[in-house]
Amino acid sequence: MSTLIANIGELVTNAAPDDDLGRGPGSFATLTGAALVIEDGRVAWTGPASQAPAADEAVDCEGGAVLPGFVDSHAHLVFAGERSAEFAARMAGQPYQAGGIRSTVAATRAAPDETLRANLARLTREMLAQGTTTMECKSGYGLTVPDEARSVALAAEVTTEVTFLGAHVVPPEYEGDRAGYLDLVRGPMLSACAPHARWVDVFCERGAFDADEAAAVLAAGRAAGLLPRVHANQLGPGPGVQVAVAAGAAAADHCTYLTDADVELLASSGTVATLLPGVEFSTRQPYPDARRLLAAGVTVALATDCNPGSCFTSSLPMCVALAVREMRMTTQEAVWAATAGGARALRRTDVGHLGVGARADLMLLGGPSHAYLAYRPGVPLVRAVWRAGHREF
Amino acid sequence: MSTLIANIGELVTNAAPDDDLGRGPGSFATLTGAALVIEDGRVAWTGPASQAPAADEAVDCEGGAVLPGFVDSHAHLVFAGERSAEFAARMAGQPYQAGGIRSTVAATRAAPDETLRANLARLTREMLAQGTTTMECKSGYGLTVPDEARSVALAAEVTTEVTFLGAHVVPPEYEGDRAGYLDLVRGPMLSACAPHARWVDVFCERGAFDADEAAAVLAAGRAAGLLPRVHANQLGPGPGVQVAVAAGAAAADHCTYLTDADVELLASSGTVATLLPGVEFSTRQPYPDARRLLAAGVTVALATDCNPGSCFTSSLPMCVALAVREMRMTTQEAVWAATAGGARALRRTDVGHLGVGARADLMLLGGPSHAYLAYRPGVPLVRAVWRAGHREF
Repeated sequence: MSTLIANIGELVTNAAPDDDLGRGPGSFATLTGAALVIEDGRVAWTGPASQAPAADEAVDCEGGAVLPGFVDSHAHLVFAGERSAEFAARMAGQPYQAGGIRSTVAATRAAPDETLRANLARLTREMLAQGTTTMECKSGYGLTVPDEARSVALAAEVTTEVTFLGAHVVPPEYEGDRAGYLDLVRGPMLSACAPHARWVDVFCERGAFDADEAAAVLAAGRAAGLLPRVHANQLGPGPGVQVAVAAGAAAADHCTYLTDADVELLASSGTVATLLPGVEFSTRQPYPDARRLLAAGVTVALATDCNPGSCFTSSLPMCVALAVREMRMTTQEAVWAATAGGARALRRTDVGHLGVGARADLMLLGGPSHAYLAYRPGVPLVRAVWRAGHREF
Repeated sequence: MSTLIANIGELVTNAAPDDDLGRGPGSFATLTGAALVIEDGRVAWTGPASQAPAADEAVDCEGGAVLPGFVDSHAHLVFAGERSAEFAARMAGQPYQAGGIRSTVAATRAAPDETLRANLARLTREMLAQGTTTMECKSGYGLTVPDEARSVALAAEVTTEVTFLGAHVVPPEYEGDRAGYLDLVRGPMLSACAPHARWVDVFCERGAFDADEAAAVLAAGRAAGLLPRVHANQLGPGPGVQVAVAAGAAAADHCTYLTDADVELLASSGTVATLLPGVEFSTRQPYPDARRLLAAGVTVALATDCNPGSCFTSSLPMCVALAVREMRMTTQEAVWAATAGGARALRRTDVGHLGVGARADLMLLGGPSHAYLAYRPGVPLVRAVWRAGHREF
């Protein structure tokens, strides 16, 4: 079964002409007058529409742009409860602090599996409808061995990019015994979670975990076969980026408060800086300095951080619009960061681009170019989504 | 035929308990545990779900919030062409100037009716899918007698809230003859347009029309039976608000640069201040000071200003999120402004609220409260829309 995607306005491939699979940050690339053929769930061909091979079926894009599916490399989707009252209070002037996480922990622990599964399904459907075809999903609202284990197991039902985040905050019952909680995280909790997870993450921030604690969690995770990623430098300057780079993390996420040394470290490492502007929008904090990172040669990804506290958007289109408006990324940089950048942050080469051989994850927009994601903020522009070649929206 | 809207999470009525039809700015009101009955296209009943009368059919809202349909009181929807390249250039640092309008004028004049009608239909469908059940629609990209006349005639095919905006800018062919263009606007153009329009508008701004010119256009419009509204104080301080209030305008729109005297004038008049934060988002300009207006007792509306140049969002949910994040309106104030406020800006008492007798224009959200519009920015939350009792999305 092959499908010809025809009458495309602009085809964003993120693949250089030599089909190097878009591995460099400079490889945002588009084709005009192009078509694409899907076969066996992969991109089988791209090129001038006039030279397209025959296919079993054809889809008329009516001049809409076709982009790689978004890769959302940072999301907290396993939880119960909601915090709209906290959001409204924050918008009325109260500051955001990491401690708010604990109210979601209480609700998540109290929820039956079916509630968590239904919430997760609703959010992943919602993301898919907004063009996201690969999503990372963290635990971190259980913070007991069984609650973390069921969180990663539930996450593994919807994605391969599962992250164990037992080191999200110290739960209330360990308030006076941080060392005891860290032993739990690095010991039985990790053992219970590692079989379901690919990644280990830690919230390295004042109010959460310090540099030594974070490094110890990442080291234990590595020993259990997990790959590290880090919540770094969100709420203030700190050691998060240093910890991430030292651990060889795939990504340091947030990167709102960086020193020159942090930026240099990121630029000289394989660690992606993942920016989450929905958080700054939803907490009224200053945005990360994307231009400084890009100027230094850091690889930048965009992700949602979808979670019930600091940012409850699931919309990468919204994050692209914020990246352009608030962080002065170009529309090309922002779309690259939300697709190929996210793929790099997850160390994936099969998604985030539409080079031949890539997984056929793509979206059709109701607009002729990728720029419409920023030009038309808030408008539901995604008209169709394919994942591994299957039309899923 | 009657319809019971059941299992509502939060019912935003904008109607005080005595059913005063929500005429005061303080009348944001909600019911919990409530139901609503639609009959003959009107709200026939609201009250506790347990006391709901029998109906011919029932809709299960599954705990989602129900709100009055949005009333978008400022939109430019009759045009051809697009300006995404100008948008991208602006985001890269070039300032927004009113002159960009002229490129849309050229494209609109060159377009056949069917192109304009198709664009208009696409935008109004898009608005409806985002909860907007009443939209104002302006001319202003024709700027010749026949092109303005067809613009208002096309607008009248989709809404009763049609605005003649011949005084948008002076078109290039009248560059050296402003007086001649104003004679045209107030004479044959107005005569051709008035039968299709309810409103007359003028862009009172440096680069467009000055106070005397604006007042003359509004006076001519009034004499032709049209009601005035004004584009005021968008790009800098100026006489727009004074002109609007002096003319008894229903609304002064933008209000980004106001003096204390302007604010006092608005507070002591029947003129609504319509804020258009999508414009500031899309032009990277400072936002209007909503809190100053609200503190002074000014009635505030929110609208999109949907247009291809300064703001191509059609999303009132996006504008609500921006109002809360950027202008520090509460979620209640923002939702009121986008519903009842818009209705006041259009001098309508049948829409913008869900008091008994109101037109049954309502939306169902995929979230339990109105606050989700700001708590979940960018997420397509509208699940269903009824207009005059008919399910249209």
